[in-house]
Amino acid sequence: MTITAVDVLDIRFPTSRGLDGSDAMNPDPDYSAAYVVLHADDGQEGHGFTFTIGRGNDICCAAIETLSEYVIGTDVDGPAALADLYQRLTHDSQIRWLGPEKGVMHLAAAALVNAAWDLAARRAGLPLWKYLSTLTPEQIVACIDWRYLTDALTPEEALAILREAEPGKAQRVAEVERDGYPAYTTSPGWLGYDDEKVVRLAREAVAEGYTQIKLKVGADLDDDRRRFAAARTAVGPGIRIAIDANQRWDVDQAVEWTKALAEFDPWWIEEPTSPDDVLGHAAIRARLAPIKVATGEHVHNRVMFKQLLQAGSIDFLQMDAARVAGVNENLAILLLAKKFGVPVCPHAGGVGLCELVCHLSMFDYVSVSASMEDRVIEYVDHLHEHFTAPTVIKGGRYQAPTEPGFSAEMKRDSLIRFSYPHGPEWRSN
Amino acid sequence: MTITAVDVLDIRFPTSRGLDGSDAMNPDPDYSAAYVVLHADDGQEGHGFTFTIGRGNDICCAAIETLSEYVIGTDVDGPAALADLYQRLTHDSQIRWLGPEKGVMHLAAAALVNAAWDLAARRAGLPLWKYLSTLTPEQIVACIDWRYLTDALTPEEALAILREAEPGKAQRVAEVERDGYPAYTTSPGWLGYDDEKVVRLAREAVAEGYTQIKLKVGADLDDDRRRFAAARTAVGPGIRIAIDANQRWDVDQAVEWTKALAEFDPWWIEEPTSPDDVLGHAAIRARLAPIKVATGEHVHNRVMFKQLLQAGSIDFLQMDAARVAGVNENLAILLLAKKFGVPVCPHAGGVGLCELVCHLSMFDYVSVSASMEDRVIEYVDHLHEHFTAPTVIKGGRYQAPTEPGFSAEMKRDSLIRFSYPHGPEWRSN
Repeated sequence: MTITAVDVLDIRFPTSRGLDGSDAMNPDPDYSAAYVVLHADDGQEGHGFTFTIGRGNDICCAAIETLSEYVIGTDVDGPAALADLYQRLTHDSQIRWLGPEKGVMHLAAAALVNAAWDLAARRAGLPLWKYLSTLTPEQIVACIDWRYLTDALTPEEALAILREAEPGKAQRVAEVERDGYPAYTTSPGWLGYDDEKVVRLAREAVAEGYTQIKLKVGADLDDDRRRFAAARTAVGPGIRIAIDANQRWDVDQAVEWTKALAEFDPWWIEEPTSPDDVLGHAAIRARLAPIKVATGEHVHNRVMFKQLLQAGSIDFLQMDAARVAGVNENLAILLLAKKFGVPVCPHAGGVGLCELVCHLSMFDYVSVSASMEDRVIEYVDHLHEHFTAPTVIKGGRYQAPTEPGFSAEMKRDSLIRFSYPHGPEWRSN
Repeated sequence: MTITAVDVLDIRFPTSRGLDGSDAMNPDPDYSAAYVVLHADDGQEGHGFTFTIGRGNDICCAAIETLSEYVIGTDVDGPAALADLYQRLTHDSQIRWLGPEKGVMHLAAAALVNAAWDLAARRAGLPLWKYLSTLTPEQIVACIDWRYLTDALTPEEALAILREAEPGKAQRVAEVERDGYPAYTTSPGWLGYDDEKVVRLAREAVAEGYTQIKLKVGADLDDDRRRFAAARTAVGPGIRIAIDANQRWDVDQAVEWTKALAEFDPWWIEEPTSPDDVLGHAAIRARLAPIKVATGEHVHNRVMFKQLLQAGSIDFLQMDAARVAGVNENLAILLLAKKFGVPVCPHAGGVGLCELVCHLSMFDYVSVSASMEDRVIEYVDHLHEHFTAPTVIKGGRYQAPTEPGFSAEMKRDSLIRFSYPHGPEWRSN
């Protein structure tokens, strides 16, 4: 099976109109996707995208167009071919200069790699998480780019981790299909929401079965204290409330601000400072213990995650499905997290990130960590209606995707309506 | 003075045809510039660019186009206005998602920030290095984005550094104008050159007055040993020979390979591993001492340089004029290096990087470090003929630029001839 054509679409949703998704660094995002469709010579399609928050989505589309030449004519039928594609997309010697392995070009690689995995899983007739679970430890290890990792994790250690998880895989697959995977919700906590809305949505979340919610913080300390107090009173002491500063602070400020919220019992502080600041996160974590530290949605590649783990910078690793170079790089990150004993609690929300990342967490449970302890996937209840196989939550848990593929496909009507800048949703505004 | 228009040009030189610039990770670069011209309402122009090695240069041009909306209508007459522009170019809340502050969008910001400084220095009638030297410590400190830096360097500490350097500034300006600034040359050491060419060029470099040269390594150890031995024999023990692996190795491999070259007395090992790997560089440096470690040409922002200094990862800091967001971010990096006592030995070469970065080193000497000890600027003798005020080297030293501006302007004929893909140089091949 060979890929014969690549479509690239600039899809944007005008979410800034309702302040959904507002936080201390992102006051008015328009959730967007640089969206790609791979066409194979057998008529199959592979869908993928990278997520942005508006302006610059066109630059990601241009980058995907440039990288498409590495995809056309490629066979993606099986993990070895996908590993080869991933290498070619991230190691073109000239394009590599623009990173390496970060920023726009890496986001573009993510869209294409994920689309290729979608295609491979569809051909296998399996949802991606289950397709990944059929691969042997050797096949998984061969999917990874080991360059720059071996001081923290060797291929041999990764093989040992995967082999240790082999017993019980079938049972865990059945468990995921029956019970799903725990979620937490960020829907109550956007910074643009007033206190009444925060309290109402927090109560609703608990009533729906969530045991963890998240609040945005970092713009104004008095506001944060008032909102956090109200939310804590609303849900009681038994519900975990994480807080998220979206990179707003320097190191000292992160420590002081978080301590000023400690009385409300934060479960973790997320993105207290720059996502690049491995040593800053390590200092913050050491000074804030026992309050936990989480980061990852903006961490740009496996080399950075490696260091966050080596330096003891984080209690929770928040992988993103489409910022690093897609499935392949995330396999490395799952194995690194397992080696260092750090639970993976993926970033989601935006548009389509919930649909994607639950596949990776479910694979993690089945084949890597074999644990759900302290592991939750973020959930935000926006924009799922645009997907052909949207995320299903029941009782605060992600239900296992059953459709073949990576759940990345948007409905044709949505792709037309939200096409930027000429689709009807944008033309009329 | 207000900017009324921005021209963006995709300029590429077919350097891959001669294997100039070849190294272990970049076998066939086509040195390129995403080039920008700012037009002001008084008829003045500001020129700037970011450097790439070919494919993807168009993506940088598209990114510059997107960021141009933050430049049109802007006043850039003076450091406060330039600081404001720098903030707007790097902190658009939606575009920031594509980094933050890394990759294509950051390269694009560099081109625009540098062009704005070129315009400001032209208006002041001074070469940039001298224009910067006229600014007060308070003005310099106000040029910097302090977010994420204060755990390593505070604005107050930066002020103290700059004030300490105030005495003797006029004398150092005169010294730079008379004697220039030390250079080293990479021209002998490209990986695609045969031994005879390496030896011949190394001897020529010493005859021209250079006291340091650099060789590319990392593709094949036997080749490296043979080439290094030949070069060492050719130049004798008194000449410093740096070696450069261009990110080829993992940590253990970097240590082993460099030790296998130790008998030829390398002055530094440059880019032994991923530019993102702060902890990896620290481990390599600790295990290789007293061999020194250098990196920086791919280090993407001030937060990464901060950590390289905090972790003791480097002996030499190799700033690049156009990878971080131009002059403003490099001011922060110069001050960080001074605080940690690490000499800045800038990356140059490519196209136009020599022209740009010598301004920053000369400013560093005049106003920040007040020292040239162990400081050298890289020099490569390619493509200078395309600039209106090209770098001048005498006796192995950069001569101080005298033309007003940042020396970024390419000749009109070159801009036409090497325009990609429709310029005559590309159309005929």
